[in-house]
Amino acid sequence: MPLEKFFNPDSVAIVGASRQKGKVGYEILKSMIDAGYPGKIFPVNPNADEIEGLKCFANLKSLGQRPDLVVIVVPAKAVPDVMQQCASLGVKAAVIITAGFKEVGEEGKKLEQQVAQIAKRAGVRVIGPNCLGVIVPANKLNASFGGDLPAVGATGYLSQSGALLAAILDMANANGIGFSKLISIGNKADIDEIDIIEALAADPDTKVIAGYLESITDGAAFVRQAEQISQKKPILLMKSGGTAAGARAASSHTGSLAGSETAYECVFERAGIIRCFSIKKQFDFAQTFATQPLPRGQKVAVITNAGGAGIMAADAVERYGLTFAELSEKTIHKLRSRLPAAANVLNPIDVLGDALADRYEFALDVAIDGPNVDAVIVLLTPQAMTEPVATAEAIVRIAKQKPQKPVLASFLGVSKVQKAVEILRKGGIPQYDSPESAVLTIKVMVDYVRWCARPKRIVRLFPVNRRKAETIVERCLRQGVREIGEAESKEILEAYGFVTPKGSIATTAEQAANIAEQIGYPVVLKIWSPDILHKSDVSGVRVGIETPQEVMDAFDLMMYRIPQKLPNAKILGVLVQEMCSTGKEVILGMNRDPHFGPLMMFGMGGTMVEVLKDVSFYLAPLTADEARQMLVNTRTYKMLKGVRGEKGVDIDAIAEGLQRLSQLVTEFPQIKEMDINPYMVGPEGTTPIAVDARISVEKV
Amino acid sequence: MPLEKFFNPDSVAIVGASRQKGKVGYEILKSMIDAGYPGKIFPVNPNADEIEGLKCFANLKSLGQRPDLVVIVVPAKAVPDVMQQCASLGVKAAVIITAGFKEVGEEGKKLEQQVAQIAKRAGVRVIGPNCLGVIVPANKLNASFGGDLPAVGATGYLSQSGALLAAILDMANANGIGFSKLISIGNKADIDEIDIIEALAADPDTKVIAGYLESITDGAAFVRQAEQISQKKPILLMKSGGTAAGARAASSHTGSLAGSETAYECVFERAGIIRCFSIKKQFDFAQTFATQPLPRGQKVAVITNAGGAGIMAADAVERYGLTFAELSEKTIHKLRSRLPAAANVLNPIDVLGDALADRYEFALDVAIDGPNVDAVIVLLTPQAMTEPVATAEAIVRIAKQKPQKPVLASFLGVSKVQKAVEILRKGGIPQYDSPESAVLTIKVMVDYVRWCARPKRIVRLFPVNRRKAETIVERCLRQGVREIGEAESKEILEAYGFVTPKGSIATTAEQAANIAEQIGYPVVLKIWSPDILHKSDVSGVRVGIETPQEVMDAFDLMMYRIPQKLPNAKILGVLVQEMCSTGKEVILGMNRDPHFGPLMMFGMGGTMVEVLKDVSFYLAPLTADEARQMLVNTRTYKMLKGVRGEKGVDIDAIAEGLQRLSQLVTEFPQIKEMDINPYMVGPEGTTPIAVDARISVEKV
Repeated sequence: MPLEKFFNPDSVAIVGASRQKGKVGYEILKSMIDAGYPGKIFPVNPNADEIEGLKCFANLKSLGQRPDLVVIVVPAKAVPDVMQQCASLGVKAAVIITAGFKEVGEEGKKLEQQVAQIAKRAGVRVIGPNCLGVIVPANKLNASFGGDLPAVGATGYLSQSGALLAAILDMANANGIGFSKLISIGNKADIDEIDIIEALAADPDTKVIAGYLESITDGAAFVRQAEQISQKKPILLMKSGGTAAGARAASSHTGSLAGSETAYECVFERAGIIRCFSIKKQFDFAQTFATQPLPRGQKVAVITNAGGAGIMAADAVERYGLTFAELSEKTIHKLRSRLPAAANVLNPIDVLGDALADRYEFALDVAIDGPNVDAVIVLLTPQAMTEPVATAEAIVRIAKQKPQKPVLASFLGVSKVQKAVEILRKGGIPQYDSPESAVLTIKVMVDYVRWCARPKRIVRLFPVNRRKAETIVERCLRQGVREIGEAESKEILEAYGFVTPKGSIATTAEQAANIAEQIGYPVVLKIWSPDILHKSDVSGVRVGIETPQEVMDAFDLMMYRIPQKLPNAKILGVLVQEMCSTGKEVILGMNRDPHFGPLMMFGMGGTMVEVLKDVSFYLAPLTADEARQMLVNTRTYKMLKGVRGEKGVDIDAIAEGLQRLSQLVTEFPQIKEMDINPYMVGPEGTTPIAVDARISVEKV
Repeated sequence: MPLEKFFNPDSVAIVGASRQKGKVGYEILKSMIDAGYPGKIFPVNPNADEIEGLKCFANLKSLGQRPDLVVIVVPAKAVPDVMQQCASLGVKAAVIITAGFKEVGEEGKKLEQQVAQIAKRAGVRVIGPNCLGVIVPANKLNASFGGDLPAVGATGYLSQSGALLAAILDMANANGIGFSKLISIGNKADIDEIDIIEALAADPDTKVIAGYLESITDGAAFVRQAEQISQKKPILLMKSGGTAAGARAASSHTGSLAGSETAYECVFERAGIIRCFSIKKQFDFAQTFATQPLPRGQKVAVITNAGGAGIMAADAVERYGLTFAELSEKTIHKLRSRLPAAANVLNPIDVLGDALADRYEFALDVAIDGPNVDAVIVLLTPQAMTEPVATAEAIVRIAKQKPQKPVLASFLGVSKVQKAVEILRKGGIPQYDSPESAVLTIKVMVDYVRWCARPKRIVRLFPVNRRKAETIVERCLRQGVREIGEAESKEILEAYGFVTPKGSIATTAEQAANIAEQIGYPVVLKIWSPDILHKSDVSGVRVGIETPQEVMDAFDLMMYRIPQKLPNAKILGVLVQEMCSTGKEVILGMNRDPHFGPLMMFGMGGTMVEVLKDVSFYLAPLTADEARQMLVNTRTYKMLKGVRGEKGVDIDAIAEGLQRLSQLVTEFPQIKEMDINPYMVGPEGTTPIAVDARISVEKV
């Protein structure tokens, strides 16, 4: 697997090993020894002969051999020299624990670049600097100062915060939670989150990838890799801090509706990453992914010895949109055959307060076989007759015999169920401190299964007139224009296959009436100015004009009134336009995130968009399925499908519009944000019209 | 205080006390003794001379005195006799632990009624049957078989599930969480949740009321009492199971939009009850309410020794709609004066990974004084230099010195912070296992403070023609009509001060044209049939008709086409109606909950209501503030206020409509559900029009 030397080294040198307790250089050496590391450990310290019984070396060269892994804890200024030694010796893997690099300012940043250059030239891979180290329980490797070696488990963990990793380690050790690998990635001078995630994906001992990230180094690469890996192993991430940059000073609806979290939500959705908002939730999810099969559906059965707990689980099943399993006749019949008459044999299966372990064992054995059951939650409250330990053993036994469906437990209480919980954990049955947490975990698994089964992504490429769009965009940028006007925006859209309303710009009332005659009534008049983005706000739009007289009146009123409201706006005239009154108004939009590129938006259109906020976002480029899913994700969708006898609109035509827009913004990184609003859509078979559009550009 | 004899009895008799370990009759006696109960304990058992060193009595009479509290654990059939003995002796308080009553079926129900009658006649108050008992830590009273006596605390707990209470007790004891009282209410034959909540409200040792409920005995009384008590003490409830009855077979929009949880959501909102979805969350909230002052605002400051944890807290502050405190110049200056240069003195205040306790103490001392700070969260991750214990002591010290603002802690990890967490708990500082949980608790407190500060509820009574409405409702019920037709619905609305559109019913095309001439164009035609509820679904509505010819055509088309679609519908004609085309369409509605009465609904109207689901519910009767708040709680509100230069509508007129509707449905319990949809509202000063309405009635 990749990064093998970090995870399974034959020998480890600790440069900066110290004799003084409490110093990091001592603690790491001690951690290595205490973990029972079976390979060779070389403490390197010119001022010591031996530390903790191990012979000490003056420098790396004096080892007389090349260590597989070098852990560096010397002061920051001495790190480049140690790296040079690594380079000369041909070392392949180094963990730089030392802090005082990029995180402390300009000088540290330079030092870090220097270190990275040495590493790159010599082919030394580096984790850190400013990190806690690397831990691999199965190999008894604890090259860290984070805490004791945890149990062996199937979760690989990476953390960008050393302090948080230490807390996680402490929580895991106190609860007997195991890991395959733990990696503190620190400043990511060389190896970053993608490298680690790839390594964990290739690691046969890792079933679940979990982590805590504060930043993502390469957005596009991250999306690409994470998407592929999620298909094989679930990725559970805590991500703190959004990308605020995209949300500032937005000039489009799309821009102002995209919050700082929108980009990460889109990225996680696209890449199938499961987002966690606390360590506890992450552990909750990870333990079931690591030990249980994926559910084949969303039908949940609950076994309980207390009605109240059962109802709480049932409520949570409803709240999270799962299905409360309706047991088959056969299952009910079987349950009834051996449970007491007072027991509830429908779901939740209530084995009653005086249930011993045998009743639980029987009920679980029957429930797990139920054809309408995809997952089973076993609830236990410690009552007078309850046998928590024997019940835990029974659950482990049945789950081993019938490993085809996930079984989750929630034994309520602490001291009275402590031993039982240990048995569950050792037997690979996840335990939850509330029924609700168990249900939420199933919900997360069901979503993951659904994501894995999504159709293959094929992005359609439409034949377009890219050259024409390029000419306009380039001209605007040359002229220093940041907001492309309506007329040119529409030319760009036409080049990409959009249909726009007929219309021209008039500079006199008479000219306006002439244009209207040519187009045919009714027409719309819109004020024409590069300085007015939201025309409605200044009464710069008049719809439904039917006669030449009305055209001339409306023209003159705009030209008279708007300059009074906005004396500094440069007014170029009035656009006289075909009126598209039939159909529904939707909005298609894009906002470019600085890290992850274009975020596409769809929603109910018109002036209501920012009020109703009924919009959905998705990462470009879009497939046909994704475009359609964007529609489905809004409440507007039902309206578009037609309600109460009213005819629906052409859904596919909207989806195609989103895909064309996706192609446009993917091919033109100069487009920073844009809206087509309203995008007027009619019944099936009709062509939607891009009535108004707004495009912001900037040099790239 | 009420129920004093239950909580602070001078003597306790245990009828059914047993010598046999494991039996409930033994366990309760043992619990009483182990808790160190200072009063007299009388075991009652005719077949024993003494149990655990206490003299045993043959029956209650033979005690020779009247015990303050009698705990009954004899078999169900023997309970009435024991209750008779209680009655003869003049006992005032009995806890019936015994199960086998209402919960096991008809026979048990009768037995329970018998017990309740004896109790009522003799003035014996009863907790139970089928309960776990009563626990009062401060009085060393453990008349239960739920577990060991917990620590003394300020939370009073009531539970309708004995099993859950046992689990809660176990969790609390394992974590040193204290209580003022714990009461298992069982079947509620006499004393119910309201009695207990009232007693806890009057209890000077109880600062927080918490509980788990599955049903509420008297909905109206519960709302009334809980609302008054919430004003003094926070009520934290887990409630499982909604009231599904209200949601079935709804014939109105309001009915179909009201979910099974809607009634409880309305009740909890109205009564200021804080709903909890797990025991853990309930403990999380209770510990801070019990120990900390209420925050005066929503500005949160965070102190941390790890950037990552600080960002997680900051993210949660944003997600829960709180404000991340912007520290004042003075606060920043003070922090800078003594923290290291690398420390972040803006919020989150980062005291750095090598912070000892003194830095935390200083930062907390300064932050708590900040004029822009309403609450402080102290985060700690156990790093190499960290002093968890000394830091905990420092936090306790500062919080004691400056008790004016809530201080919450989140020490991450388990074993490394265990001692520190104990110190925090003993020092009255709530501790959370994640920054997010601490932030959520502040959010809950802020909401509670806001609820307490809500304006006084004054329900306005409008002068109406109640008699007229009554005549129509009664006539419909006499005729067996369940769905009152449009014309009569409007008469009822008019009697309550609503304005409805002009119009009459036509049975021929010519008649329709005549009516239209009288009303004036444009008109609307609507099919008229008691069997057609959703007219649009069958093309039974035509709007914007401008000429007599169009009227006659539309009439004939409806009369021809609709019977083809619905051959069994009785069609009475076509309503020709004034067209109200200006203004915005909203919906006013009501759905009656079987336990809590009318739930009022407001939302965006028209055919979109069930699609957009932009509705809000509130319990009737409404005050002007509540009616207005219902509007504010929808996204539609912004649209009604006017967007993008468009003028807003008359908000007060809608609020008045809601209040009038609230009065109507409060005065007529026969009205089961109803909609006014659309309720057409224009600009300020105009009168809204109830364009269409639907009223379902049933005999009460």
